[in-house]
Amino acid sequence: MKMLFRNTKILCENENGFEIIDGSIGIDGDRIAFVGEAPEDISGYETVDGKGQLVMPGLINSHTHAYMTVFRNVADDLMFDDWLFGNIMPREDKLLPGDSYWGTMLGIGEMLKSGTTAFLDMYIFTDENVQAVEDSGIRAVMSRGLSGIRAGDEGGNRRLSEAVAEIKKWRSQGNGRITFMLAPHAPYSCAPDYIKEVLECARELNVGIHTHLAESRNEIKNIAETYGCTPVEYMERTGMFDLPTVAAHCVYLTDSDMDIFADKGVSIATNPVSNLKLANGIAPVKKYLDRGINVCLGTDGAASNNCLNMFRDLSFLTLLNKGVFEDPLAVSAEDGLRIATVNGAKALGLENTGSIKAGNKADLIFIDINRLNMFPHNNIISSLAYSANGSEVTRVMVDGKILMENGELKTVDEERVRFEVARIADRINN
Amino acid sequence: MKMLFRNTKILCENENGFEIIDGSIGIDGDRIAFVGEAPEDISGYETVDGKGQLVMPGLINSHTHAYMTVFRNVADDLMFDDWLFGNIMPREDKLLPGDSYWGTMLGIGEMLKSGTTAFLDMYIFTDENVQAVEDSGIRAVMSRGLSGIRAGDEGGNRRLSEAVAEIKKWRSQGNGRITFMLAPHAPYSCAPDYIKEVLECARELNVGIHTHLAESRNEIKNIAETYGCTPVEYMERTGMFDLPTVAAHCVYLTDSDMDIFADKGVSIATNPVSNLKLANGIAPVKKYLDRGINVCLGTDGAASNNCLNMFRDLSFLTLLNKGVFEDPLAVSAEDGLRIATVNGAKALGLENTGSIKAGNKADLIFIDINRLNMFPHNNIISSLAYSANGSEVTRVMVDGKILMENGELKTVDEERVRFEVARIADRINN
Repeated sequence: MKMLFRNTKILCENENGFEIIDGSIGIDGDRIAFVGEAPEDISGYETVDGKGQLVMPGLINSHTHAYMTVFRNVADDLMFDDWLFGNIMPREDKLLPGDSYWGTMLGIGEMLKSGTTAFLDMYIFTDENVQAVEDSGIRAVMSRGLSGIRAGDEGGNRRLSEAVAEIKKWRSQGNGRITFMLAPHAPYSCAPDYIKEVLECARELNVGIHTHLAESRNEIKNIAETYGCTPVEYMERTGMFDLPTVAAHCVYLTDSDMDIFADKGVSIATNPVSNLKLANGIAPVKKYLDRGINVCLGTDGAASNNCLNMFRDLSFLTLLNKGVFEDPLAVSAEDGLRIATVNGAKALGLENTGSIKAGNKADLIFIDINRLNMFPHNNIISSLAYSANGSEVTRVMVDGKILMENGELKTVDEERVRFEVARIADRINN
Repeated sequence: MKMLFRNTKILCENENGFEIIDGSIGIDGDRIAFVGEAPEDISGYETVDGKGQLVMPGLINSHTHAYMTVFRNVADDLMFDDWLFGNIMPREDKLLPGDSYWGTMLGIGEMLKSGTTAFLDMYIFTDENVQAVEDSGIRAVMSRGLSGIRAGDEGGNRRLSEAVAEIKKWRSQGNGRITFMLAPHAPYSCAPDYIKEVLECARELNVGIHTHLAESRNEIKNIAETYGCTPVEYMERTGMFDLPTVAAHCVYLTDSDMDIFADKGVSIATNPVSNLKLANGIAPVKKYLDRGINVCLGTDGAASNNCLNMFRDLSFLTLLNKGVFEDPLAVSAEDGLRIATVNGAKALGLENTGSIKAGNKADLIFIDINRLNMFPHNNIISSLAYSANGSEVTRVMVDGKILMENGELKTVDEERVRFEVARIADRINN
């Protein structure tokens, strides 16, 4: 399949940052064939007029729990313990095999509609989440959440061996669109010796690590009391950061924590909306950028956001840092776009994605820049961070395949998803 | 015109707060005729199936400068002085008669599409902004911005007399959909004696006051150095608060300022996105609510937001207060909805709007609650604050007239608006 979008605007990068060029973009199979000027011979290309559209890299949601859409809005405006122990966990106990497939599918549909082409997921059921990714055509890095209170912990061992088996199974039949990490859940749910077992498996499988880290003041306090160190130091001592690691949240890092991250190349997946929603606070992303840490962006799950719309998190990220640091230059629109695209690709180990150039994967989204809220075109890059809400996305392409066009999902059966998820919500709420 | 929406969900209020009822809502002329159960005789009513929709009060944007859409994204990621003096003001100088009409129309179109049915505007050209409101069918409280560095100041006097003439002219031909305030701009742009002249005119015209107050640390510092008081005390001394007043921003209030506001019944129009964008900080709305102050919500202008989408400001308002106070109950979804609807109606003096009950004005919006990001329906009220982005609005009605349906504006010519605003942007940017 070859497609040529003519007469369009394209968000590219040069050595000075982003630039918007006018011209054509060609797709050949799963790759971008050319950008800017079309070659003389365009035989075999289906040509589409791209007027009034901006083509940009798909956004990369670098931390979410897609299946949790089934818990959207169930437990808002509550204290954390009541939220987690009184509402979310009792409902998780009621989930049956298959539920997680539909919850993930709802999350994927929502992400596609709002311009996300790849995500890093953490979940509690094997296979069915991956199956939803496989069926939908979206790109994802999948990671089973792992907790274990000691080495040899029975539940922890079972989860780890299930995760390893899942990775081996899917790898053997995969097309490269689905990759994996292992996800020791958090310092407070994983003992050091258990983490070391996970890391050993990760080394054998040659996969990276996905974890929650330094999310709340409570976590900082508890780890300090029990281990006399910060959550980052706790993980550092296990050797985690010798593997490629994505650490979600990182609301509270010390200067020395930041040094460790910068030194070890750990990526931070910041989740500005979730951190506000759960009243954890505001991550000082400006500081992390100043240190040269690779920061990427995630929505977290729908139970703590409550939507999987990366454009919303992009606006929160950029605007919050200006307001908190009282510095309008703190995190610029360009910084935000880089965090939501190319930095995410780097963190997730997704080669040849996250930016537009010939030879890269055709993971692209098309933005209707003539929406009234995007008009006039005084500064299109700025409008992506400060004016867009995600509903401007008119077309989404992953691996060169169109997965959404004019609001219509091509691979996700919306009616069926609604039917199944309503059924699940009925059951777990009663 | 009589319309009956059957089989729908309706956001109403009872003595305990909001509730969602299932049933019908009837519109007769500019009023809500019935809510819940339809009367036996519905002859003359055009009946529409409302399945999958939530009918709720239109949002009330309690502080904006609609014409400033022409400056959207022109000067982002800049220090305040460079933003205002280097970029916004030089462009304002290039505006010609008529430009403000199209800028306002773009803002109105954007507000209608994202669910705003009424707004409080402050502007710098007379008549043409009001004309845009008149032509579009939206509800608005219009206020010419007034500045004067002393009593008898020539420019200040001219602006005031133009504003008075504008109010008299439009009142004589108006239908009640357009009302007025006078808008002494801010403490730093209006001398006390000039404000007193404005207040005198407001008393004669029987209109309220719209002003900017306590927006930035700089303002607090400068007023303290020059007058030895807070901006609120400065205005209090002029007698301003003896008139109904809407004070925009109020990022920095002392405890004693809050006492004055509570005592005098001053309304605060909070603008969370604008305050972040311009790096002014975060208004402690939770404190204001605890004091019993009437808080309403505004987007501010597109130059400092950069969109006029009340659903976005609603999510920032509720989420920011949780994060800043590290309290997930700080400003709840219900608090936010009240702030964005009924509190706005109270602040703007809009009787019989802001809530749904028989006899009230039919200023209504319809929300597609089956969008994936609003699903499942675990808690619809919560989804309005935390999951919606404004694109779920499928129908907007003001005074019982449908102004937007399925994304199509009925009274605003979108193509023409884009054409005219692009022309204006070209001129003022070059």
